[in-house]
Amino acid sequence: MTHPLSVALAGLGVVGGGVLKLLRDNADIVTARAGRPIAVTAVSARDRTKDRGVALSGLRWYDDPVALAADPAVDVVVELIGGADGPARALVEAAIAAGKPVVTANKAMLAVHGAALAAAAEGGKVPLAFEAAVAGGIPVIKALREGMAANQISRIAGILNGTCNYILTQMRERGREFADVLADAQKLGYAEADPSFDIDGVDAAHKLAILAALAFGRPVAFDAVHVEGIRRISALDIAFAGELGYRIKLLGIARRNDGGIEARVHPCMVPAAAPIARVDGVFNAVVAEGDFVGRVMLEGRGAGAGPTASAVVADLIDLARNRFTPVWGADAAELSNAPSVPMSSHVGPYYLRLMVVDRPGVIADVTAVLRDLRVSLESMLQHGRAPGEAVPVVLVTHETLESSMREALKRIEALDAVLETPAMIRIEAG
Amino acid sequence: MTHPLSVALAGLGVVGGGVLKLLRDNADIVTARAGRPIAVTAVSARDRTKDRGVALSGLRWYDDPVALAADPAVDVVVELIGGADGPARALVEAAIAAGKPVVTANKAMLAVHGAALAAAAEGGKVPLAFEAAVAGGIPVIKALREGMAANQISRIAGILNGTCNYILTQMRERGREFADVLADAQKLGYAEADPSFDIDGVDAAHKLAILAALAFGRPVAFDAVHVEGIRRISALDIAFAGELGYRIKLLGIARRNDGGIEARVHPCMVPAAAPIARVDGVFNAVVAEGDFVGRVMLEGRGAGAGPTASAVVADLIDLARNRFTPVWGADAAELSNAPSVPMSSHVGPYYLRLMVVDRPGVIADVTAVLRDLRVSLESMLQHGRAPGEAVPVVLVTHETLESSMREALKRIEALDAVLETPAMIRIEAG
Repeated sequence: MTHPLSVALAGLGVVGGGVLKLLRDNADIVTARAGRPIAVTAVSARDRTKDRGVALSGLRWYDDPVALAADPAVDVVVELIGGADGPARALVEAAIAAGKPVVTANKAMLAVHGAALAAAAEGGKVPLAFEAAVAGGIPVIKALREGMAANQISRIAGILNGTCNYILTQMRERGREFADVLADAQKLGYAEADPSFDIDGVDAAHKLAILAALAFGRPVAFDAVHVEGIRRISALDIAFAGELGYRIKLLGIARRNDGGIEARVHPCMVPAAAPIARVDGVFNAVVAEGDFVGRVMLEGRGAGAGPTASAVVADLIDLARNRFTPVWGADAAELSNAPSVPMSSHVGPYYLRLMVVDRPGVIADVTAVLRDLRVSLESMLQHGRAPGEAVPVVLVTHETLESSMREALKRIEALDAVLETPAMIRIEAG
Repeated sequence: MTHPLSVALAGLGVVGGGVLKLLRDNADIVTARAGRPIAVTAVSARDRTKDRGVALSGLRWYDDPVALAADPAVDVVVELIGGADGPARALVEAAIAAGKPVVTANKAMLAVHGAALAAAAEGGKVPLAFEAAVAGGIPVIKALREGMAANQISRIAGILNGTCNYILTQMRERGREFADVLADAQKLGYAEADPSFDIDGVDAAHKLAILAALAFGRPVAFDAVHVEGIRRISALDIAFAGELGYRIKLLGIARRNDGGIEARVHPCMVPAAAPIARVDGVFNAVVAEGDFVGRVMLEGRGAGAGPTASAVVADLIDLARNRFTPVWGADAAELSNAPSVPMSSHVGPYYLRLMVVDRPGVIADVTAVLRDLRVSLESMLQHGRAPGEAVPVVLVTHETLESSMREALKRIEALDAVLETPAMIRIEAG
């Protein structure tokens, strides 16, 4: 048990550098907790000459990351290249084929190809670990797959993208519009130059797909995740949310209902008093509800070199100790085949905000549409009067079927007095 | 791998009944996640005839729990008897001696005898698991010992006793005094008939001692924990806390400083905006700060049949999968021998509330005492005037040495115009 665990590291970006730094700074702790030293012995990255702030001398260098899988002196391959396909996937497939355990932070690859990779890993009895793929340093994979393993999980909900949460927090605290806050976030490095992956909800959906597979013990199914981002959230809706006692958060939610598993990423209004409503800035959080344990919430930093390296090395320590857990928590033969429920079957309360011409009969027209589609209203909010001008009107519904709400929105938008596409935000328990 | 894990269960109280119920209700999930069935085959409890609401037929019954350790058909012993000594300890010692893995929820036993039990377990290469001993269903042991294993932990802080947190929450929300709320909590079953174990901080101290051992990788040291409870918290101090932007929580805190490890349980003023300040009612929460991961918070139900059974069965699933972690996260030879720092060396800001006669010169006398002991004031608060009568005066200090503060309190209490023992509450970052 005392020979070092020999690690090959593919990808020397921010996270790869963090892993090298952690293994050096905390070598004593890691050795004690792993029962033996963990040593990076081989690396691969695009540019040999780049200064990464960590010494790389003495490490075997490979230009082709896939070659790491064939290095006979390597015990474990750590994949930090990123991207659902390309060299990342080729390396992971090669490592599994070579019988080498894999640690990866690659949520896109796991969300899209995780079912096939898990099958290959199980077939070859090769561990495939990915704590760093969801919520950075928060040990949410371990908590769900091992810590809450005795429970039937009914629902998970998470703030899974720090960029979106930062933007929504800034919009609320400063009363500013989305585009302004995004521009500032880009200047500060909290958002990418091309931010669509984050703000359109794709990153959160990758993570949700992985969490849903773990929570419900079934193969990952990214295509079944409904995805909406935060581009259309306005300062006006954030202000109305506050007035109604809600906060707007981009949540990833997966829940079990009679028809199967519902998985969706979209902006939500959550009660301001709910624990997840108070998770602000770049922090991530995941709430899981189990039949015996009740609600458990985990909160922490979801990105960055340090937190992600912490998760990668936790996986390496598990491997060094020979602690093994099947990818989705159980062997393939034991996994659930619960169907995915389409978004059109979702049922919940809705917030609608319309811009209408302030004139007699408008509200009657709008409410007639809702009546015809059997959408029942809980409350309506309209401030002040401005005869003949545009005013916002807010409607909050009781539990409503998504497909009815979509039809209602289409008809409402077609009304003469309705001036722009209505804003629709689903209300969640938090 | 497919033969069932045969479990002996000692103690059929609320938690024992919960474990039996969980293993029956969730048998499919548990089997899938454990890779094989987990079956209770033998039990021990004081009263054979009591109706526990779960069928016990077909199980081998032992009047003496220690005899479970000798049953050759038993793979694992689950100890749910409770108490630091007596039959619980005898059973655990016997099981370890017999080479049988142990799962226990017994925080008192681990806090007091954990060092010796861990040494015995390590000597015999026998797993000793105790997720249920701290914070009920929240997988905090697993998160600290495995999920955050790559980090140097600098500080942990937790709401570790649901009874105290419920009482403090009720006092704040309803503006009521401690004794009234305690009486109601006893009627509702949230507090024991003899509540001292909870409200004097002993239960929280047991849990903190265990968390500190895990966080700092050293043998458990219960005697080194400073313990104060919540009996002396008044509605007046809770109101002042609110006015100053704080909430009063009973926290267990362990932190590393230059001199070693500080471990203490006492009421704290924490900023109202801190995540842990907003954990109300019977919920527990633990915040851990690691050098790479940053702050991670876990929150959930810290007690009750369901949450505790969830943790016990999670440990059984780990055992069924042969996932093994040393008791304090590393082998004994690798543990730290960092010394315990006495409470007198604690440094932090303090809240003081005096009841004084409202007459000229009193504040001058009080502040002279503080000046003489080099205690520097951040703020002072006094509402209204009532010449010649008793009025509260609140003082908030800058960072102060505990021993200086204690001397100051002694001198202040001796002043003529000071009418009762001053209230002193330490201020924490949360």
